[in-house]
Amino acid sequence: MAKIAVVGAGMMGSALTMPLVDAGHEVELVGSPLDDAIVASVRESGLHPKLGLPLDAPVKAWFHGEIGAALAGVDAIALGVSSAGIGWASAAIAPHARADRPIVMITKGLVWNGTTLVTLPEVVRAALPADRRESIFPAAIAGPCIAGELARRVPTCVSLTGTDRATLDRLRDLLRTPYYHLFPSTDVVGVEVCAALKNAYAMGIALAVGQHEQRGGQPGSIAMHNVESAVFAQAVFEMSRVVVALGGDASHAHGLAGVGDLDVTTNGGRTGRFGRWLGLGLSRDEAIAKMDGATLECLEILAQMRAALPTLQARGLLGVRGLPLLEHLAAVALDGAPVTLPLAAFFETPS
Amino acid sequence: MAKIAVVGAGMMGSALTMPLVDAGHEVELVGSPLDDAIVASVRESGLHPKLGLPLDAPVKAWFHGEIGAALAGVDAIALGVSSAGIGWASAAIAPHARADRPIVMITKGLVWNGTTLVTLPEVVRAALPADRRESIFPAAIAGPCIAGELARRVPTCVSLTGTDRATLDRLRDLLRTPYYHLFPSTDVVGVEVCAALKNAYAMGIALAVGQHEQRGGQPGSIAMHNVESAVFAQAVFEMSRVVVALGGDASHAHGLAGVGDLDVTTNGGRTGRFGRWLGLGLSRDEAIAKMDGATLECLEILAQMRAALPTLQARGLLGVRGLPLLEHLAAVALDGAPVTLPLAAFFETPS
Repeated sequence: MAKIAVVGAGMMGSALTMPLVDAGHEVELVGSPLDDAIVASVRESGLHPKLGLPLDAPVKAWFHGEIGAALAGVDAIALGVSSAGIGWASAAIAPHARADRPIVMITKGLVWNGTTLVTLPEVVRAALPADRRESIFPAAIAGPCIAGELARRVPTCVSLTGTDRATLDRLRDLLRTPYYHLFPSTDVVGVEVCAALKNAYAMGIALAVGQHEQRGGQPGSIAMHNVESAVFAQAVFEMSRVVVALGGDASHAHGLAGVGDLDVTTNGGRTGRFGRWLGLGLSRDEAIAKMDGATLECLEILAQMRAALPTLQARGLLGVRGLPLLEHLAAVALDGAPVTLPLAAFFETPS
Repeated sequence: MAKIAVVGAGMMGSALTMPLVDAGHEVELVGSPLDDAIVASVRESGLHPKLGLPLDAPVKAWFHGEIGAALAGVDAIALGVSSAGIGWASAAIAPHARADRPIVMITKGLVWNGTTLVTLPEVVRAALPADRRESIFPAAIAGPCIAGELARRVPTCVSLTGTDRATLDRLRDLLRTPYYHLFPSTDVVGVEVCAALKNAYAMGIALAVGQHEQRGGQPGSIAMHNVESAVFAQAVFEMSRVVVALGGDASHAHGLAGVGDLDVTTNGGRTGRFGRWLGLGLSRDEAIAKMDGATLECLEILAQMRAALPTLQARGLLGVRGLPLLEHLAAVALDGAPVTLPLAAFFETPS
């Protein structure tokens, strides 16, 4: 039994409290500055309004201003904020970082720093105090995990990645339950690149859903599944190419973080809804307006990738026509180009 | 413009006539002995009763007894029968086989012959007359293609495989249209092993759909997608392992024939319905009874794989616990074992 803090009280962070409680831990759930209403509800009635579930008794909810008290004496810290919250969360936990207090994050994303694409565990590590930065190895969880399902104990398999094997082993021991399976890998680039890219590609798969409806199609057996599955296969092909270009192992593109997470993401969620609007022929701005302010990670990763591509291509790491799907998705979602999926250019090995 | 015969007038064979007509060919559609009602309907009104579409004018329908006249002077032969019909079709086309008349098949399956798993292009080739067997190289099409969609010109990407590159180039030139994209590969084992195995694994993914309903779940966002996607990723992991064990290239498991076809197959069809019944807790026989006599390729490939596994393992080609998902699926579908998906055993590299 340990004491574990989860920072970020949205869907995913709060869902993680379920296996933690079932594993026998005390859990301190700390809201971000955007989570005050959630924390208030959990404190008052136990109900998490977004999950639609009560959080079990050993979970204690804290407002963001109370993070110092919440983190006192915890054995590990989990970051459950969205990618937009990673700056706040990194700074907020920094004073509490210790070598014997592993950090694990479920936030996903990649940041182009002008030289390379940086994974979020590296972003968090860079924000740690200099005197502790060399002895802490932030880890990350990726793979097919819908928060509302994990919170209802649906069996779930995820990748657990980080540079330090001992940290991964400790975290797996803390987090696993009979329904929550963690598969460790020290290939952070392989796992995290897939975790970030899958949002862009899930948007691409959903384009065909919208195109089908635009052409008068109804939900049913005669849809455009052939297009969706061709895009799915090309997405995996391109993800593995980016992973290898950045020094990771392609096996993650073919595993939980790639194929698995792409599959689960196409089964619903806001990324798919956004892609459907674009496929229906709405402009980029019209599609964004339909999303009621929901965070669109797909736009963020497409912007980062577009910034990165010229440099990666100039270095010879990616062929000039190596990512035709991703480039088309960026043109559609960032520039408002019409949807014309480049199927004839798929599966090419650039000479 | 060429003259092309399609043997087998079911959904898939008949759907193939659409790109053939659009590519400008004359098409002779020959029914199998099971297709008399379809041929009669097409002759009488043009309507293909299973596709729910009229077949375009340059398509001429023939009864199986007329195959000699139908095949006279054709430039290529496509086999569109089900795996159960491959014996009849191979024998029926054998007298008409010629070195300058390429054969391409859309039938999928693997046959354990006591020594190795034989792909269907090899089965067809073995049935050719001895004097022509060395100069004909049967090819095959695999990948995500729902017949009813191809027949409605939904953009479709498929793998085209065979041992002879010139045959593949000729077939691609004959078959391709602006919406039907064929990607050639001479790795027959890589493509065909995935094409066959995907039926078994699609059944496995659907088990979670049935389990969800059995536990009182309704269609909606809180389902068991986490399980489905973990099974999906493990399926790809195991497919690549079998491909490599049989001498093929794992890239096909990660491409159209593997990931792509698995994705499209989970989007509907009889394999998914059968898996759902098993997931709901029906016995094997009860589930079969629910299927109204539909061909269940998943049972056939599971039986062939079960027959093959001891030998492949004894030869050291597959680890003893290398295919935990496939072995569980065989136990459920062939022996009536209860569904207990072995998630904790996933993604293991046998030592």
